[in-house]
Amino acid sequence: MALLVQKFGGTSVGSLDRIHRVAERVEETVRAGHQVLVVLSAMSGETDRLMRLAHEVTTRPDDRELDVLLSSGERVTIALLAMELRGRGVNARSFTGRQVGIVTNSSHTRARIEKIMASPVQQALAEGVVPVVAGFQGVNERSEVTTLGRGGSDLTAVALAASLKADRCVIFTDVDGVYTADPNIVPDARRIHKLSYEEMLELASLGAKVLQARSVEFAAKYGVPVEVKSSFQEGEGTLVTHEDADMERAVVSGVTGDRNQAKVTVIGVPDRPGIAADLFTAVAGASISVDMIIQNVSQGSLADISFTMPRSDIARALPLMEKAKDELGAQTIEVKDEIAKVSIVGVGMRSHSGVASRMFQTLSREGINIMMISTSEIKISCVLHEKDLNSAIRALHQEFGLGQPVDA
Amino acid sequence: MALLVQKFGGTSVGSLDRIHRVAERVEETVRAGHQVLVVLSAMSGETDRLMRLAHEVTTRPDDRELDVLLSSGERVTIALLAMELRGRGVNARSFTGRQVGIVTNSSHTRARIEKIMASPVQQALAEGVVPVVAGFQGVNERSEVTTLGRGGSDLTAVALAASLKADRCVIFTDVDGVYTADPNIVPDARRIHKLSYEEMLELASLGAKVLQARSVEFAAKYGVPVEVKSSFQEGEGTLVTHEDADMERAVVSGVTGDRNQAKVTVIGVPDRPGIAADLFTAVAGASISVDMIIQNVSQGSLADISFTMPRSDIARALPLMEKAKDELGAQTIEVKDEIAKVSIVGVGMRSHSGVASRMFQTLSREGINIMMISTSEIKISCVLHEKDLNSAIRALHQEFGLGQPVDA
Repeated sequence: MALLVQKFGGTSVGSLDRIHRVAERVEETVRAGHQVLVVLSAMSGETDRLMRLAHEVTTRPDDRELDVLLSSGERVTIALLAMELRGRGVNARSFTGRQVGIVTNSSHTRARIEKIMASPVQQALAEGVVPVVAGFQGVNERSEVTTLGRGGSDLTAVALAASLKADRCVIFTDVDGVYTADPNIVPDARRIHKLSYEEMLELASLGAKVLQARSVEFAAKYGVPVEVKSSFQEGEGTLVTHEDADMERAVVSGVTGDRNQAKVTVIGVPDRPGIAADLFTAVAGASISVDMIIQNVSQGSLADISFTMPRSDIARALPLMEKAKDELGAQTIEVKDEIAKVSIVGVGMRSHSGVASRMFQTLSREGINIMMISTSEIKISCVLHEKDLNSAIRALHQEFGLGQPVDA
Repeated sequence: MALLVQKFGGTSVGSLDRIHRVAERVEETVRAGHQVLVVLSAMSGETDRLMRLAHEVTTRPDDRELDVLLSSGERVTIALLAMELRGRGVNARSFTGRQVGIVTNSSHTRARIEKIMASPVQQALAEGVVPVVAGFQGVNERSEVTTLGRGGSDLTAVALAASLKADRCVIFTDVDGVYTADPNIVPDARRIHKLSYEEMLELASLGAKVLQARSVEFAAKYGVPVEVKSSFQEGEGTLVTHEDADMERAVVSGVTGDRNQAKVTVIGVPDRPGIAADLFTAVAGASISVDMIIQNVSQGSLADISFTMPRSDIARALPLMEKAKDELGAQTIEVKDEIAKVSIVGVGMRSHSGVASRMFQTLSREGINIMMISTSEIKISCVLHEKDLNSAIRALHQEFGLGQPVDA
């Protein structure tokens, strides 16, 4: 008998028919003799609908009230699933974020979990009850409703699994796992059987939207084995766990592309100490994360500073940067938004040398110009023209043999 | 400066446009220097929608889970109104049933309020905050969500008004008050300016759906002045308060009709003591309320027992009564569902004699046959054929001069 946390996302509970299939899956697991705790999101589209209502009511909705509003969505799904399970003779009981004891800080709409007082669910599990828990929500110390931000239900599931020392946290979603590349771009992309937390974290933050990055960090910290699998078809998924010998055999585990990129160049910045700090402080103040940075002295004592950032933040960042430019005495700002980022990720890079040069040669062979490069211990990213992204992904996938099964 | 509780029902918050108008009204009251606490229902239709979902998921939804489901509706409206008020510069804050401290028993879907720990709202009011409270919901001693049954938001409003010793509880609804008769039937029906709790209670339980009966009982018990008025137009409504000299000047305050009536006759019941008790115990066990009862010995030692009950409960009651009939050794059961009940209500009946005979004479003059009669200190009801109901209402309205203003 294992203790399993099963999390179902919005598309998996998007209709009564789908809730019905979730109930079947949970019942099967229970009948197989396991203890199960279920975590649910709101029905797909519901959070967006509520957000739209809020923004129609007022231009800047209050964050505390947004949380009261948004947290209504999971109440509907947990109650419906608990009812259906009880109708099938499975002793289930719904728990809101408060009832499950998820205590967060008071940063409404993006709260961080501070502690989990899991005793009510522990007791329920001991009584043979299947707890059906509302994901995405908690309460602060004053017992006010908070939410954990987009993808927060993954975090609820992983945090409860950690707190209960569950044997596995299974994230059911609309894809059947993490792939070596986007199958829409690379037809022979394979599902990855096993990934390390570090790799998953790089892939998550690089834009593979399978698992929320904060929940991967949490799983790594507490060593929770997380399995990502399809809620619509049977079969294995991708297991995210501690790095092991198997994983190191592959040099590269996956290739990802990110189109949400823009390159900003501030031209003619007086080249004196601290000037870059001043520039980036202005942007950081608006919670805009800058990625790669290049500085080069071009015209005597004037420097150019280039950096990349999410394309979707450009509209918000530009006024701040224009202001900083004037204060710094720089000349102009140039924005280039037809760029993209290709990355290769793999713990095998630690033990294999020459991975970077193989990557650059491969792109060069394809006639692809590299604009910027950044590396970490298990990742290499290159910024290139957006039109080259798909061919870069395909060439790298081929070069590192990702189409072949690992065991072949 | 007065402390006012303002309650807005489902149709008053049924769309963003209407929530906008509620916000205007609340803001006006605040700007006029009053303290305001707002109680809201879910958007109209939402409770029905959630109920439908529950019944599609399973034939007999669990009551505890129904409450989790149904209580999601008011979270949406309180958050939206609080946001809009804050957007207008009114310091508002939403409170769920739990946050406002409404503690109920554990009868899910029809819980009764046991106590109100109003200190959080009292503190909010003292800080100049407008509390926006979710009606219809509370929590039991174990902090599980409960709901108060249909119309429960009225009860939330009255109970909070009592607990806070508010100067007035204003129930905004889609009609502008309580009328001397249904204006669709009697064109010269007048809005009643002032009614006693007892009269309102009789009218509420007789089917005038303006105010939930339990909330009237609660208001009477704690002496909360309740005003019913329109949320769509300006002007006075109907004030429900302690009986006073004004009210006694009118013999009759209102005439109501109720079509949700059926008459059941159990024929050939052995006439021995306790037999009626046995029969009605069977029906009471299913929470079906029997109204008028007539027993008459017809065939030697056999009696017929006739009684009225809500027509909507007949399907549920019949199998129980068939069973009781067999156990009692009765002959047959006859159901007549084309009946209706007309009632006149007024505290003035206490001091005026001959009201009953005037009522019977009026009906007789119209050629209307009376099947059953029941009376209380301030009410007389007659059961008649459904086809005669409207003319009975019109004739009684005329006879007791209800079309003329009280002061004329």
